[in-house]
Amino acid sequence: MTKQELFENIKKKKSFLCIGLDTDIKKIPSFLFEEEDPIYIFNKTIIDATAKYCVAYKPNTAFYESMGVKGMISLEKTIEYIRTKYPDQFIILDAKRGDIGNTSEMYATAAFEHLKANAVTVAPYMGEDSVKPFVKYPGKWVILLALTSNKGSADFQLTEDKNGERLFEKVLKKSQEWATDEQLMYVVGATRGSMFTDIRQYAPNHFLLVPGVGAQGGSLEEVVKYGMNSQCGLLVNSSRAIIYADSTREFAFAAAAEAKKIQEEMAGYLMNM
Amino acid sequence: MTKQELFENIKKKKSFLCIGLDTDIKKIPSFLFEEEDPIYIFNKTIIDATAKYCVAYKPNTAFYESMGVKGMISLEKTIEYIRTKYPDQFIILDAKRGDIGNTSEMYATAAFEHLKANAVTVAPYMGEDSVKPFVKYPGKWVILLALTSNKGSADFQLTEDKNGERLFEKVLKKSQEWATDEQLMYVVGATRGSMFTDIRQYAPNHFLLVPGVGAQGGSLEEVVKYGMNSQCGLLVNSSRAIIYADSTREFAFAAAAEAKKIQEEMAGYLMNM
Repeated sequence: MTKQELFENIKKKKSFLCIGLDTDIKKIPSFLFEEEDPIYIFNKTIIDATAKYCVAYKPNTAFYESMGVKGMISLEKTIEYIRTKYPDQFIILDAKRGDIGNTSEMYATAAFEHLKANAVTVAPYMGEDSVKPFVKYPGKWVILLALTSNKGSADFQLTEDKNGERLFEKVLKKSQEWATDEQLMYVVGATRGSMFTDIRQYAPNHFLLVPGVGAQGGSLEEVVKYGMNSQCGLLVNSSRAIIYADSTREFAFAAAAEAKKIQEEMAGYLMNM
Repeated sequence: MTKQELFENIKKKKSFLCIGLDTDIKKIPSFLFEEEDPIYIFNKTIIDATAKYCVAYKPNTAFYESMGVKGMISLEKTIEYIRTKYPDQFIILDAKRGDIGNTSEMYATAAFEHLKANAVTVAPYMGEDSVKPFVKYPGKWVILLALTSNKGSADFQLTEDKNGERLFEKVLKKSQEWATDEQLMYVVGATRGSMFTDIRQYAPNHFLLVPGVGAQGGSLEEVVKYGMNSQCGLLVNSSRAIIYADSTREFAFAAAAEAKKIQEEMAGYLMNM
């Protein structure tokens, strides 16, 4: 999917919501355990209930890997379901991969050829080799960790070099030598609203994937205020607040209601686009 | 496995060799394609041929993920085979995972409860949250990326802060607040022999996992000279140079010969332990 296509979807659906499929067998409604593949059925039901309110889904690989081969089957089926039933959805494999060249190539094969995701999240620590193999795929995206919203983000990401440049700023600058904003986005945590001003200095045109709204305490209003650009430039993710909105047989309705609430707030911010 | 147990194995086998199972369907001997699971059969054959020359195996998850569910089955079977047939081998899941707390917990479940590896490689960019969930498992290890040997390692790892401290040094120092050398190792690339002096300043007692000897150009002699400590403190990895030493029906013999050659050199360095 191109940047323009993503922006068109955002305008059409009046939403820049990404729904995180952090599907945990311990948290899904217990009546689903009757199903052969409860994780997949949960995801499918959530997707059918929420697809009209969002433009992207973000399965978090860790949750599927924790269940081994069975989990990987659920993941493959989930992505295949989104791709065939809702082909306008942008599918982000939230895997935070990062390795040297020949291994990154294998991760790219896994994400883009095998699973056929549109994008994969990548960690920058190993530099260029971790990014380039992914952007060899036309129309596919790397979403590089820049400034995250977890406690540990302060451990290294905010380290200043001799010129006062922080590590996440270096990541923003350096990575633009490896790919354009047509294939590169950044992960920027929502709990630091005003930090978006700093991010936009270095990445005015890039899309930013913003986790941390909702369960993790970030404010959508702040993110929009400091982070939105003329092509929206934001994919705001919510996982737990939507998918675990309810744990009864009504869980899909509750998820839809939660997604709709966020979408409606987003529609307001998109009015002039 | 404890640090002491690992050291005892090293002394007993006169080896600190780790063999990387970067098993690529495009590189294994073609006669294996007759098998139902060629990747597993390749691994099993390599393991049987080399186990007496090494103390650790390191399957690289990317290679298995690139084949989807089928690859994950091969990975599970490979680890299970090592665990049951060669229980003294230290099994490193080379996954370079790194995420926030609840997601790291899922990666830890995948690596330690599901696959039952002894250790997993972890990326430090997201800080403490990426490490701590793994060290909650007694006897299990985090092997944290510190200074890698790829070209892109210079992009961020060597960045100096205001006090001249490089990022990898900060990673070495900070991470010791989260775990002791009984559960924490570091990845240090072998192509920078003299850099081991710097590493040992900050991590005198830690085991270091050292890729880059062989195919990637590092010298074992240099690594030992600058990196070895009184408990050996080194796991030196070789992947391609061993497992793809030959592509005929004799591949296992060739792999064994290659592993034996390295082990014999290592035995010399371990003489006084």
